[in-house]
Amino acid sequence: MRDTVLWAELAWPQVEERVKAGAPVFLPLGSTEQHGHHMSLNVDVVIPTQICERVARRTNGLVLPTVAYGNRSQPRTGGGPRFPGTINLSAHTFSMIVRDILCELYRQGCRKIVVLNGHYENIWPAVEGIELALDSIGRRVEDFVVLRADLWELVAPETIARIFPDGFPGIELEHASVIETSLMMALRPELVDLTAARNDGPAHFKPYDRNPKPAGGVPASGVLSLTEGSSIEKGEWLVADITTNLENMIAEEF
Amino acid sequence: MRDTVLWAELAWPQVEERVKAGAPVFLPLGSTEQHGHHMSLNVDVVIPTQICERVARRTNGLVLPTVAYGNRSQPRTGGGPRFPGTINLSAHTFSMIVRDILCELYRQGCRKIVVLNGHYENIWPAVEGIELALDSIGRRVEDFVVLRADLWELVAPETIARIFPDGFPGIELEHASVIETSLMMALRPELVDLTAARNDGPAHFKPYDRNPKPAGGVPASGVLSLTEGSSIEKGEWLVADITTNLENMIAEEF
Amino acid sequence: MRDTVLWAELAWPQVEERVKAGAPVFLPLGSTEQHGHHMSLNVDVVIPTQICERVARRTNGLVLPTVAYGNRSQPRTGGGPRFPGTINLSAHTFSMIVRDILCELYRQGCRKIVVLNGHYENIWPAVEGIELALDSIGRRVEDFVVLRADLWELVAPETIARIFPDGFPGIELEHASVIETSLMMALRPELVDLTAARNDGPAHFKPYDRNPKPAGGVPASGVLSLTEGSSIEKGEWLVADITTNLENMIAEEF
Amino acid sequence: MRDTVLWAELAWPQVEERVKAGAPVFLPLGSTEQHGHHMSLNVDVVIPTQICERVARRTNGLVLPTVAYGNRSQPRTGGGPRFPGTINLSAHTFSMIVRDILCELYRQGCRKIVVLNGHYENIWPAVEGIELALDSIGRRVEDFVVLRADLWELVAPETIARIFPDGFPGIELEHASVIETSLMMALRPELVDLTAARNDGPAHFKPYDRNPKPAGGVPASGVLSLTEGSSIEKGEWLVADITTNLENMIAEEF
Amino acid sequence: MRDTVLWAELAWPQVEERVKAGAPVFLPLGSTEQHGHHMSLNVDVVIPTQICERVARRTNGLVLPTVAYGNRSQPRTGGGPRFPGTINLSAHTFSMIVRDILCELYRQGCRKIVVLNGHYENIWPAVEGIELALDSIGRRVEDFVVLRADLWELVAPETIARIFPDGFPGIELEHASVIETSLMMALRPELVDLTAARNDGPAHFKPYDRNPKPAGGVPASGVLSLTEGSSIEKGEWLVADITTNLENMIAEEF
Amino acid sequence: MRDTVLWAELAWPQVEERVKAGAPVFLPLGSTEQHGHHMSLNVDVVIPTQICERVARRTNGLVLPTVAYGNRSQPRTGGGPRFPGTINLSAHTFSMIVRDILCELYRQGCRKIVVLNGHYENIWPAVEGIELALDSIGRRVEDFVVLRADLWELVAPETIARIFPDGFPGIELEHASVIETSLMMALRPELVDLTAARNDGPAHFKPYDRNPKPAGGVPASGVLSLTEGSSIEKGEWLVADITTNLENMIAEEF
Repeated sequence: MRDTVLWAELAWPQVEERVKAGAPVFLPLGSTEQHGHHMSLNVDVVIPTQICERVARRTNGLVLPTVAYGNRSQPRTGGGPRFPGTINLSAHTFSMIVRDILCELYRQGCRKIVVLNGHYENIWPAVEGIELALDSIGRRVEDFVVLRADLWELVAPETIARIFPDGFPGIELEHASVIETSLMMALRPELVDLTAARNDGPAHFKPYDRNPKPAGGVPASGVLSLTEGSSIEKGEWLVADITTNLENMIAEEF
Repeated sequence: MRDTVLWAELAWPQVEERVKAGAPVFLPLGSTEQHGHHMSLNVDVVIPTQICERVARRTNGLVLPTVAYGNRSQPRTGGGPRFPGTINLSAHTFSMIVRDILCELYRQGCRKIVVLNGHYENIWPAVEGIELALDSIGRRVEDFVVLRADLWELVAPETIARIFPDGFPGIELEHASVIETSLMMALRPELVDLTAARNDGPAHFKPYDRNPKPAGGVPASGVLSLTEGSSIEKGEWLVADITTNLENMIAEEF
Repeated sequence: MRDTVLWAELAWPQVEERVKAGAPVFLPLGSTEQHGHHMSLNVDVVIPTQICERVARRTNGLVLPTVAYGNRSQPRTGGGPRFPGTINLSAHTFSMIVRDILCELYRQGCRKIVVLNGHYENIWPAVEGIELALDSIGRRVEDFVVLRADLWELVAPETIARIFPDGFPGIELEHASVIETSLMMALRPELVDLTAARNDGPAHFKPYDRNPKPAGGVPASGVLSLTEGSSIEKGEWLVADITTNLENMIAEEF
Repeated sequence: MRDTVLWAELAWPQVEERVKAGAPVFLPLGSTEQHGHHMSLNVDVVIPTQICERVARRTNGLVLPTVAYGNRSQPRTGGGPRFPGTINLSAHTFSMIVRDILCELYRQGCRKIVVLNGHYENIWPAVEGIELALDSIGRRVEDFVVLRADLWELVAPETIARIFPDGFPGIELEHASVIETSLMMALRPELVDLTAARNDGPAHFKPYDRNPKPAGGVPASGVLSLTEGSSIEKGEWLVADITTNLENMIAEEF
Repeated sequence: MRDTVLWAELAWPQVEERVKAGAPVFLPLGSTEQHGHHMSLNVDVVIPTQICERVARRTNGLVLPTVAYGNRSQPRTGGGPRFPGTINLSAHTFSMIVRDILCELYRQGCRKIVVLNGHYENIWPAVEGIELALDSIGRRVEDFVVLRADLWELVAPETIARIFPDGFPGIELEHASVIETSLMMALRPELVDLTAARNDGPAHFKPYDRNPKPAGGVPASGVLSLTEGSSIEKGEWLVADITTNLENMIAEEF
Repeated sequence: MRDTVLWAELAWPQVEERVKAGAPVFLPLGSTEQHGHHMSLNVDVVIPTQICERVARRTNGLVLPTVAYGNRSQPRTGGGPRFPGTINLSAHTFSMIVRDILCELYRQGCRKIVVLNGHYENIWPAVEGIELALDSIGRRVEDFVVLRADLWELVAPETIARIFPDGFPGIELEHASVIETSLMMALRPELVDLTAARNDGPAHFKPYDRNPKPAGGVPASGVLSLTEGSSIEKGEWLVADITTNLENMIAEEF
């Protein structure tokens, strides 16, 4: 079978062998969510998957199938449910997926897990899914190490400063904006069409949520900040940061 | 953006446009499950995904991201939990995923849904997921049509007879066997390595389940029947049958 | 108290005594579901209950109260929800019942359990209920043996061939048809009235599900195949097969 | 088919006809729970089932299959989990059963429901099951009338005074005692063996629960009060009271 | 920090110290429910909280924050959902709260727990919450002692006789009546205004529940019995009884 | 009854009257969580409760009982589960509480709801609870307006700049630090003892989570940043900002 880090593209004896050899196992968490006129709905799937693949190659790891549906998109961080194309899971469903997968990994003897999240709204239900798994497995299992990272947290402050010389609008507003667009340009350029970008941002959100979701606030494009200034080069800076930090994390924790 | 039927590789305005035009929406259901020494763990993902893509191209449809984790593998139909690499969800989690996705599709105005399943153990939790969605949406919504098919049910009996001139062992035993192997050879040959096949089948199951799972019964390879006799040509017969039947189903029901 | 194998008709010290003596414990799973104009709604309760009683008498076993409500009837296997009289539980509720009962049996020291199912749609939620119980009890409990059988799987192929000399339509279509009718004639003849049978079958189902449930497909009577040819004699053949196979299963596994 | 009030012993067209004619539908709620050395474990099933049958015959009603497993037995009201033979469901599972059944009855056009409970610990999860059904069906459905009664609440105070001339110990202590024993003697005498009664009561409970369940408190027999003085005649008084009150309730409410 | 028995008003090192010293931990269970024109909605919060505080002071205990929302109010015991101001939780939500809190207490090393309930409808979901916690923690944990009491069960019969010289109407009818009113007059007199009492009771309930909730039956005021005769003195008798019995219970069980 | 904005200290007719008059209803969300050696465990309860009371007095509003138990504390934002005194609910339980309360408010005719959160880990399960309530109530209910705010989001940037002239460490690190300490000094000074503060911070967290929770990272005191520099005056600035912003929000949205 092919030389690959993708768990699902291996036959079971190959997975068994690598797990026995202590391979770190990566679980990418994504979503199917609008990312403006200029990018496909799978941005939150592509980025953590590709990052995991790169790091897995350097760490003899394995990458599980990405969870392609994420927790409910919210207006202030992803545009919310009003955009066609966005498919939301409820938080409890999402947590149960994470729980079930982790319980299975534990049962199979995997002891080094990296959960890498690419969708803002997944943060808390992923945390809860890990907690639920530990509730099931038993808290005394000290040798089952689960690391959970949001990929934007792995970017160095200096890189942020370099990308945003006029000041960083904050990670929540980065939805479909320079960071994600640059990363996609570096990783899957055929899924980006900058000429289609509307540039109707940035969003000006009130500091609270409102239900029913207000019509205003979210730019009509779904881009919360700006796409202008996105570039392959910036994407490569970001990829370099994130992969390096993941490698360091793995070296340190496992 | 690219000309594609993949929902997730489109930008949201493109999805909106196609949904408004009445595109049938395909939801492939798969699993991450052992398929012998000679095939990758994503067989149940690859086959329904590829079939959906082909049919979607001919019906102006859209294909959602495949649910890549399935309901718990059982010894008599998929080898069961003892094989490394198999990642099981509980039935309730799986049903909730299907429910949540269908509720979202309804909310977005999709009215023609095709759920295509490639993993035996998903049958019933997929049925339940649809029922739960209809419980939520309300049963009176007569214009929300959800078709659910298991891909092996769409093979013509004559094709089965042609592939198995000595008699068909039954679909449950086909796990990782001639039908699935031939389909993979036709669809993703790089994920099949016939030279690695063990040919230690067929399984001789007792007509009941036992827990704890018995060590015996399931062939050590995980192939429940036989791989011998698999071929690209047979895979193409199967693909032709299934895609034709799906197209007919869509022409008739929508 | 009476000499009986019915758990519920014994006083608790009698149950305790028999469990300590190693009695196998039978849990029949049924449903309340239409079975045509000619049979009562409790067919799926009567058959597994009576079979369990007979086998329990020969194996010093105990028969628990039958779960009288089953998982949602589906058009292709039981007629579906459109028939008055059919009372469906959701799959999760049904699984929880099985889980709770098994956990209680484990707690009480029962170690030999036979779950005998008489309703097609119960197969998977019963499997899941057992899995959930093992999740709760802990997977390492190797001495807690749970056998799960669907009663039609225990009929010998030769008997099927003898009953259907012109070819067997398949077990799914047997709903309220020759097998079930003959079994009821042998077991509870007062609940069968062959003169009321409509003989509007067999059903011609498409090889997929449709929601909303289509009006067509299911014969108006609810009988999916045929009642003609049902007889007490055939019922006795079936009872003999099933009970013998259950006894063999118990002799072998416990 | 036979002339019966048992829903499950009718064919579906007969159920349809009676429901259309406005038949009240009875759902008996029972349990499988120890009732001393002198009575079988199905006391809480037998009594509400038999009572429902009698009343249904006089009111052209239908009796659904009794829910044979009840909510967790507690030491102060049923002896608790330490007695072999008692099979407990969790409260949520029990509520879900009641919910699912009521939702099905509503869907089928039943509008007059009587839930008759025979197991003390079922009171609150039955109430919750009804609430959950109404949550699902919608609260504005004013024509769906569900009456819920605990059978001991339907005994006239004068009858209690006549049965207990020296004072009534209270309904909670009546578990397996004079009221239940007399009712069983009147309804299913073959399931009572007064010579086996231990008469080690009455229980002297502290006015609070303790977990882990204390070994003391519950008499070793499981009879919370006394069996002495039980008689067929008293059982008939009780049956007369309960059936009359149920008939009056039905006459008044439907 | 202040000298207090309130867990939430201590800093964590103080809680740690007291738990290590073996402090009994009190969890008061309340509700937000109508209590007539003359009392505030927090009666079921105030009474168990204040009682716990008094007993904790004498037993070196700690009082957790009171659960301020209770299980669904029912017409026959609390007036039911028709009264503005009453906020109901579903039974399962309530049970989960109790479960989660108990699991946390166990994890922290607390081994002596007193759950004191002040709301009739909480009885059974509190019992279930404790059972669920023990299901999670494991039943073999014999040193984790959880006592559960309903505060009205801790009143001596002689006190009841003294308060109701003309006969006790029963605890269910005491909702917002003499016992609760007197207790509030003794504990938080500023939340009682006897001049606002309507005295339109007592309620005359039928011995069964009806859904939809009938308009009649419950007095318009929400007071199920009578407020007349309430007094600070009677409240003090009740407080004395309950606190003494709790102290005795603690002395005996821990 | 007293002149108060506290829902629970009013009698039901008073709540009814104010709800009919259009009172905004405030639901404070808190937790029971360690806040260092120098503050009580109820910091997250006190602050949103007091803020809601102040704003309710100026807007003729009503304040519901604060939810006193919050979602699981995490090391990077609240110290995590290792600190005695912290009592965590699971995310799903917390979401169900919020859901149930909102459904009840809707049922009672409340149409203007303000959910004010004081515990970082509650953000997402509160969002989910609101979504679940809207799923139950129906999404078309456009007149049921629910505003959700985290209190720290309502502080003006200039105030942050004034409090942290040397740069703001970020809201996550503010746990038990200058903002919360100053707020408590202004609102409930008797629950703060600055002399007990350890000043062992600030925390230096890695940019990812680790399970099992690492021993390091969280300062031993539980204070994530610094207490030094806390003052009543700063607390009053913060109270002024938050209450003003809440009033503006209410004026604008209702």
